[in-house]
Amino acid sequence: MTIHAYAAAGPDAPFEAFEFDPGPLGYDQVEIAVEYCGICHSDLSMLKNDWGMTQYPFVGGHEVAGKIVALGEGVKGLEAGQRVGVGWTSGSCLRCDQCLSGYQNRCPDAEGTIVARHGGFADRVRAQAAWAIPVPDGVDLADCGPLFCGGLTVFGPFVENNISPTDRVAVVGIGGLGHMAIGFARAWGCEVTAFSTSPDKEAEAREMGAHHFLNTRDASQLAAAAGSFDMILVTVNVALDWDAYVAALRPGGKLHLVGAAEKVSATVFPLILGQKAITASPTGGIVTARKMIEFCDRHALKPTIEEFPMSEINAAFEHLESGKARYRIVLAAG
Amino acid sequence: MTIHAYAAAGPDAPFEAFEFDPGPLGYDQVEIAVEYCGICHSDLSMLKNDWGMTQYPFVGGHEVAGKIVALGEGVKGLEAGQRVGVGWTSGSCLRCDQCLSGYQNRCPDAEGTIVARHGGFADRVRAQAAWAIPVPDGVDLADCGPLFCGGLTVFGPFVENNISPTDRVAVVGIGGLGHMAIGFARAWGCEVTAFSTSPDKEAEAREMGAHHFLNTRDASQLAAAAGSFDMILVTVNVALDWDAYVAALRPGGKLHLVGAAEKVSATVFPLILGQKAITASPTGGIVTARKMIEFCDRHALKPTIEEFPMSEINAAFEHLESGKARYRIVLAAG
Repeated sequence: MTIHAYAAAGPDAPFEAFEFDPGPLGYDQVEIAVEYCGICHSDLSMLKNDWGMTQYPFVGGHEVAGKIVALGEGVKGLEAGQRVGVGWTSGSCLRCDQCLSGYQNRCPDAEGTIVARHGGFADRVRAQAAWAIPVPDGVDLADCGPLFCGGLTVFGPFVENNISPTDRVAVVGIGGLGHMAIGFARAWGCEVTAFSTSPDKEAEAREMGAHHFLNTRDASQLAAAAGSFDMILVTVNVALDWDAYVAALRPGGKLHLVGAAEKVSATVFPLILGQKAITASPTGGIVTARKMIEFCDRHALKPTIEEFPMSEINAAFEHLESGKARYRIVLAAG
Repeated sequence: MTIHAYAAAGPDAPFEAFEFDPGPLGYDQVEIAVEYCGICHSDLSMLKNDWGMTQYPFVGGHEVAGKIVALGEGVKGLEAGQRVGVGWTSGSCLRCDQCLSGYQNRCPDAEGTIVARHGGFADRVRAQAAWAIPVPDGVDLADCGPLFCGGLTVFGPFVENNISPTDRVAVVGIGGLGHMAIGFARAWGCEVTAFSTSPDKEAEAREMGAHHFLNTRDASQLAAAAGSFDMILVTVNVALDWDAYVAALRPGGKLHLVGAAEKVSATVFPLILGQKAITASPTGGIVTARKMIEFCDRHALKPTIEEFPMSEINAAFEHLESGKARYRIVLAAG
């Protein structure tokens, strides 16, 4: 058995054709024929070894969409030919407190799809069966890869914070994560405001589902929004004027971080007086992923993607690094 | 009608006998004959005009326990002679979203008992009837003043964060707030750890209800507690090694602030990976206050107090400023 992949030999090396033998399929694993695989910004971080945990040759890709081609002998409830997706996590212990409480994404022994193993920039990828999320018929495989990583990351906060359709939600950053978050917030039934430093994105943000647009380069707009939001979902990874964002929350509101700026720093008194919180979350558990993809099917939600043949993976990474991707890049297997 | 109080003419002036006419009793107010009034650290902050909202002559006192002596004509459900307590808040609009959602303490028009009016260092004090909380028979008036401000402040986080008796709770600081928080956490059914910079408080902390004691001056003890707590309740108002406290949280845990250090600053990545939150809250709403005092009655919880005659108010403030109060000071009306 040989898997045909694209691997980088080091942080500055291009992706090149790479073959490897994955060994026997695990008892609880499925093997997926990759049809599409999204490129996430964290593929770039891993390529560059930003987090010090990359092994080379590095095969990235953790926004997988494809069909099951083989099942481990212990796998139940899935079948060959079934359409599934796999995101950041490809396995977890399924017996620790976190796994058994619905937080498989917080399992201390969780296996990352591209951490110390090879990911979805390949013709085949394997995952623990529980982490191969069935894709409803109404969702295109071409569209759904980014939902299982970036999508899940911004869907989780709605679930975890018990966001109500009567809430006002702001999304900070109209990019790979933010544009999906705006769609989720709108379909969730909320009053949605897009925050951006790019006023020229206003029309597009409104098309994505935002009712309002706030130019965060204009401090007076942010000041005028004081006391407005039940959740401000931060999808960018740069330092913000945190106190101004806290001020923009309603009493009881949450400044929720999924973008990893280095530090968050806020004045305590306004947090106390307004019972405001700084919250954060990593992707989502298995059931949240199932609910998300069903929600996307029911509401016809999908990311805005740009497709590249997988053979043009290096051009696709250059496009990602240019910051010009609108808004997720998806590689189509050959 | 004359109220006999103790007022300070300025931030550095002593309290002196002071009389004033409170005018007619409001339609929805009660008048309370003060039997006891606690001194809270925020009485000192107000005396010194630390928050820029003090009016002189200043009559502090917002941990009132006494008996109703007069009722406004619109008051229902309370009666003359009834034992009640009043804390930081003496009134709210009762018609805004916050008031009508159970968060009267977050009402933007809330009236502070000692803000732009005179408080409980007096023989009489008035409050909106809804904010005069009935005291159960089993609770001593001498003990209960501090419960309505400091007590409510540390009781609220258990309610607001849905703390379960199966949770592990740490309380940072064994002082005026912390000693009540330890008692609440123990009676709540939790596994309780007291954090303190004073190792000599260990025995006392255990008597208060702590199962464990952690000396925060010893960084290795804090490091060894990584991943331990569902809530760390911070009752001190100094800067902490925030990242070490975040690390001590379990996945999904909350670092909850009721002590107002100037700033809180934390590294974002651990917040995201562990789905951890920095939360905060101000005192509590009316129903939370009612539940708290009933909880104290049922569990025989009371603060540790030192009693001074109200006529010795200046000596009592000196004792507070010395940092030696163990743990709440209560003035007994003459």
